Amino acid sequence: MTQEKGMPQEKYMMLETIKDRIRPLDEKAMEQARFRWKAIAKPLGSLGKLEDAVVRMAGIKGTSDYEIKKKAILVFCADNGVVEEGVTQTGQEVTAIVAAHLALGTASTSIMAKTAGADIFPVDIGMAADVPSLTRPEEKVCRGTRNFAREEAMSREQVWRAIQVGIRRVEELTSQGYALIGTGEMGIGNTTSSSAVAAVLLGCDPEKVTGRGAGLTSEGLARKKRMIEKALTLHQPDAGDVPGVLAKVGGLDIAGLAGAFLGGAIYRVPVIVDGVISAVAALCAVRMAPLVREYLLPSHLSKEPAARMLLKELELSPLLDGGFCLGEGSGTAAVMPLLEMGVQVYHRMETFREMKIRQYEVLK
Amino acid sequence: MTQEKGMPQEKYMMLETIKDRIRPLDEKAMEQARFRWKAIAKPLGSLGKLEDAVVRMAGIKGTSDYEIKKKAILVFCADNGVVEEGVTQTGQEVTAIVAAHLALGTASTSIMAKTAGADIFPVDIGMAADVPSLTRPEEKVCRGTRNFAREEAMSREQVWRAIQVGIRRVEELTSQGYALIGTGEMGIGNTTSSSAVAAVLLGCDPEKVTGRGAGLTSEGLARKKRMIEKALTLHQPDAGDVPGVLAKVGGLDIAGLAGAFLGGAIYRVPVIVDGVISAVAALCAVRMAPLVREYLLPSHLSKEPAARMLLKELELSPLLDGGFCLGEGSGTAAVMPLLEMGVQVYHRMETFREMKIRQYEVLK
Repeated sequence: MTQEKGMPQEKYMMLETIKDRIRPLDEKAMEQARFRWKAIAKPLGSLGKLEDAVVRMAGIKGTSDYEIKKKAILVFCADNGVVEEGVTQTGQEVTAIVAAHLALGTASTSIMAKTAGADIFPVDIGMAADVPSLTRPEEKVCRGTRNFAREEAMSREQVWRAIQVGIRRVEELTSQGYALIGTGEMGIGNTTSSSAVAAVLLGCDPEKVTGRGAGLTSEGLARKKRMIEKALTLHQPDAGDVPGVLAKVGGLDIAGLAGAFLGGAIYRVPVIVDGVISAVAALCAVRMAPLVREYLLPSHLSKEPAARMLLKELELSPLLDGGFCLGEGSGTAAVMPLLEMGVQVYHRMETFREMKIRQYEVLK
Repeated sequence: MTQEKGMPQEKYMMLETIKDRIRPLDEKAMEQARFRWKAIAKPLGSLGKLEDAVVRMAGIKGTSDYEIKKKAILVFCADNGVVEEGVTQTGQEVTAIVAAHLALGTASTSIMAKTAGADIFPVDIGMAADVPSLTRPEEKVCRGTRNFAREEAMSREQVWRAIQVGIRRVEELTSQGYALIGTGEMGIGNTTSSSAVAAVLLGCDPEKVTGRGAGLTSEGLARKKRMIEKALTLHQPDAGDVPGVLAKVGGLDIAGLAGAFLGGAIYRVPVIVDGVISAVAALCAVRMAPLVREYLLPSHLSKEPAARMLLKELELSPLLDGGFCLGEGSGTAAVMPLLEMGVQVYHRMETFREMKIRQYEVLK
């Protein structure tokens, strides 16, 4: 179908190749992990969603005996032409400033990641400005998208290049021993593109999935909703053609994130969904290659209105409900210590059998 | 009123003394903390409940410039005579076994606390058995409560002794430099006593606040509900007389936890509410001394049915929704890294003003 839409043959093959490389989870490893949870001396199922996450990671890694040593957060940074429409509180110069701070280790999420023991990798996948400490020219698809209120945000070719950047970054991290990857983004205007893509993929009114982003006024919010409605009328995106939707009303960060989720499934490493932008990208990846769904881990329920609907569609139940709307991968940083705790209890906690051996320490 | 119920004069005075020592939060410190959050270079309010927690801690500590270095979890361990009624899955010998593992550092929560950088202190406030590595004879109120299906669980005198143990433990920890205290409990049968106390304090049908605890069958659950209903009919506890409610259908762990929450307010240290048992105890403390409410921090939403109602009554919105029902302070261990992240961002993140100075790093 995508082929009929005019995508070059080589790219269409690429998606087929990606899908060929993604295998279902390892059922045997998951069965062994469930068995171990049952043997551990604590009430059955009493760590709830943490137990589910530990089992899923076993299925992803293909073994019930795994560790999570190195953790990374990939933050895709890109600009959005649509900011011309007055849908944001700040100008797009902020994208590069925050990206620079992510590289320096002085952004909000950098500080949270340090507590979580994770390394942050900002990726300039299409910022308007360059930041020498992080920009890799071969990864920079273009200097921000076009204004999708007036024309298509980017070409299909650019969408695919961004997806490739995401896949390659995950490959690079796994080759460096990273065993758990969080996702994040930085891009003024990216809740606007995310809401547009979410409305198309969920088949719902933009009104329902458009929020205040980083703090829009009520007037700004009304403008943002109207603008998205008009853009969808103009471009008529087809929900069945995900790269086409991204080209018309998406963003380079969303495409890069979708690539990271595809990469997680290809290289068998769990990738954590962050807030609403990350969840939109995860849904893009799942629609392109349905098995990706099994490789996702949840983090938090963002304050943006689309978050709950997207997570439901992804069949993910968030562990955190902190009322965050910060972006930058902050939700994935926040959930990492919890996942770590789950893995530690799973590995180190004694079984009922071992516990009984120690009963002698209790005197009646 | 409690005096009329036959409480010794000295004890009644004690509650008055406790209430006299509890002051409202420091509004000025909170105002300064809110001001700092506004100045920090990130979207306003974007760390949601974490920002609220950081502000509350400033009010508790009386300064907006505080750190959280040492963290502790107090786990009150006690047995419940009501286990005779077949309301639990395991026998009461498990209480002391788990308590021994908490002291050894090999229980589930010990492992989670290690990831959180917190020290665990199990308190034998009334286990049937002794565990030499942790039992302090002066803290052991008695060897488990009586079966409240037939007689009152304990005397008022015993309730007050348990409350005192909780207060003194918090005093001890603060004198050792602990700046954040989590709560937890271990006691086979303690969701039964908690449901009974919750039904009285919330003024609702026991049916609504009684759950499966550590994994009861449906038949066991029905028996537990009937038993609680009969006990409430037998004892006719008065919701306005909290020590009386605890004496009739409570537990030593609940009373000790209530003491810990009172202690937090007296010694101005934030105390984190864990699951349903801890939340019942927090409500006991709040009903005895209403200012205690301001000294509480939320952690998670337990799977037990009373949890949501209790947290609402305490005006606490949980940060975690992991489907936990493990007890032992596991929810407080799980939330500690998040609170740590909040405090770190609050202290270390640059302000908008500082950020602008660094704009030169971005090249156009």
